[in-house]
Amino acid sequence: MLNICLIGSGGVGTIASLVLEKSGRARVTAVLRSNYEIVAQKGFEIDSIDHGKLPSWRPSRIVSSIAEAVQYGPYDFVVVTMKALPDVYSLPILIEPVVTKGVTGIVLIQNGLNIEIPLAEAFPENVTMSGVSMIGSRMTGNVVYHEDPDDSFMGPYIHSGLSREDQTEKARLFVEVYNAGGAAKCVLTDDITRARWRKLLWNGTFNTLCTLTRLDVGALQRGGGTESFLRPAMKEMLKIAKGAGYDFPAELVDEMIEGTPPTSPFKPSMLVDLEKGNPLELEVILGAPLRVARTLNLETPILGMVYEALKIVQWGILQQKN
Amino acid sequence: MLNICLIGSGGVGTIASLVLEKSGRARVTAVLRSNYEIVAQKGFEIDSIDHGKLPSWRPSRIVSSIAEAVQYGPYDFVVVTMKALPDVYSLPILIEPVVTKGVTGIVLIQNGLNIEIPLAEAFPENVTMSGVSMIGSRMTGNVVYHEDPDDSFMGPYIHSGLSREDQTEKARLFVEVYNAGGAAKCVLTDDITRARWRKLLWNGTFNTLCTLTRLDVGALQRGGGTESFLRPAMKEMLKIAKGAGYDFPAELVDEMIEGTPPTSPFKPSMLVDLEKGNPLELEVILGAPLRVARTLNLETPILGMVYEALKIVQWGILQQKN
Repeated sequence: MLNICLIGSGGVGTIASLVLEKSGRARVTAVLRSNYEIVAQKGFEIDSIDHGKLPSWRPSRIVSSIAEAVQYGPYDFVVVTMKALPDVYSLPILIEPVVTKGVTGIVLIQNGLNIEIPLAEAFPENVTMSGVSMIGSRMTGNVVYHEDPDDSFMGPYIHSGLSREDQTEKARLFVEVYNAGGAAKCVLTDDITRARWRKLLWNGTFNTLCTLTRLDVGALQRGGGTESFLRPAMKEMLKIAKGAGYDFPAELVDEMIEGTPPTSPFKPSMLVDLEKGNPLELEVILGAPLRVARTLNLETPILGMVYEALKIVQWGILQQKN
Repeated sequence: MLNICLIGSGGVGTIASLVLEKSGRARVTAVLRSNYEIVAQKGFEIDSIDHGKLPSWRPSRIVSSIAEAVQYGPYDFVVVTMKALPDVYSLPILIEPVVTKGVTGIVLIQNGLNIEIPLAEAFPENVTMSGVSMIGSRMTGNVVYHEDPDDSFMGPYIHSGLSREDQTEKARLFVEVYNAGGAAKCVLTDDITRARWRKLLWNGTFNTLCTLTRLDVGALQRGGGTESFLRPAMKEMLKIAKGAGYDFPAELVDEMIEGTPPTSPFKPSMLVDLEKGNPLELEVILGAPLRVARTLNLETPILGMVYEALKIVQWGILQQKN
């Protein structure tokens, strides 16, 4: 049995803990924050496209802090499903107490680019892997509504502290267990960064532009945003990816735009965060690729300006939070 | 006695009607829309820095439509204090019933640039003049709170349909009466367009950027907007003004930024409109100078992008209204 600590039991994290428990090969200690009390009392009420209806479900153990989780270690894996907010908290410092040197694999199921670097640097004797998830799952209180299948790519973020084989093997094990738990699809990849760039093409554009204009993906396009912003912004992102060594066909832009019809009322995650007054995943979704662009001396007038505008919006959100 | 029809009795318009009536030289027929019923019953409740407290004030006559105002014409002046929204309604078509050919002077006390052109074109035998107002006055229901003095520049928009002397004389008369009514200061200028460009330097930048980020003028600056947006946007506006023949010293940028301290909680008019779900004066404040920039082949990357983003926001507002 794998001993797993899962941090951040929102819509994505709760389904991940369910899948891991259902595999019969893992026990999950879930660290809950704002919803600890209600879940302790009532469990999670889950309505899942992959797993059906579960009126009151709990992982093996729930705790209300990372400090409390320490006593149930050592952990084979720490799974992080929190929002990726490097401008708000330091993930290496946060999870350090539950990471056992040379043992614990770190699994980041989070948005963005280069999110693995600080972990690989802080824990050079541990495997860091990450997942790009296409899941659609949201939580209110203790209620999880999971409407789009738990489809993901996962892979190791190879670093020089361990052999490539050991890193790949650890990631393979996690993916094997995750698939055994009935995920819709979890694909092991040896190039997770490529999958991250591909997702950024959507997230760095649709997600950020909907947030800036506070419109859903359909309205953004019906309002004229496709040609003034979306398409040129996607081309900038494609250019940065190419500069970073990840070449995608130009047609992917059309494909992504066509795949998000102007009739869709979908609100992307960053807009949902904004409407809730929560911090935006701006640094990992847009800041990180723009830092890559800067080192490559690439011009990104549109993405650059969207970033600067949202940085001010983010500042406003953080002021309200403090 | 001048016979005046005033259209748009909000915070600015109500104070204008009060000033005109107080002059003893004009009678005002005010066209009210949303607040007609309450003002008919209770009058305006005014708290004014220039005129003190007036618990229940009414101009000579209030009517609920322009059609109704026609019977009380002909008018010496039609004063327009509505929001300037050429993408929402056509002002020439709207006011045509109360404009008597060769007689009625058209006075636009509104934001923006080149707002006079459609009027001068539609009414070539009439004087069109405009005012740039620094007044701070807002209305809720029938209550007017007037906190910044009624300070303005007014002047004729000289066109070829009439002699310069006739146009200047008509404008002079209006300014004389307006000053007689106890305006804080109303200065006749022979170059109202220069005053409009100067105000655009603030309105096209602070006003639009606060709207895009939904922050007040202080927060915009504390959040880092001064260097990323405000200063470069102001320089773009200064460049367009110069291209159009209106040269201002570069120091005006610093002066305007210093004149709007980072501690100020002031919400500019466009942000207030946005928060109320009202259409934005985007076309006259930002669209118009950008159209000038385009004819002059000037690069305006920041203002251009702010405009494109707010155009989408405006679309969203108009969708909600319809």
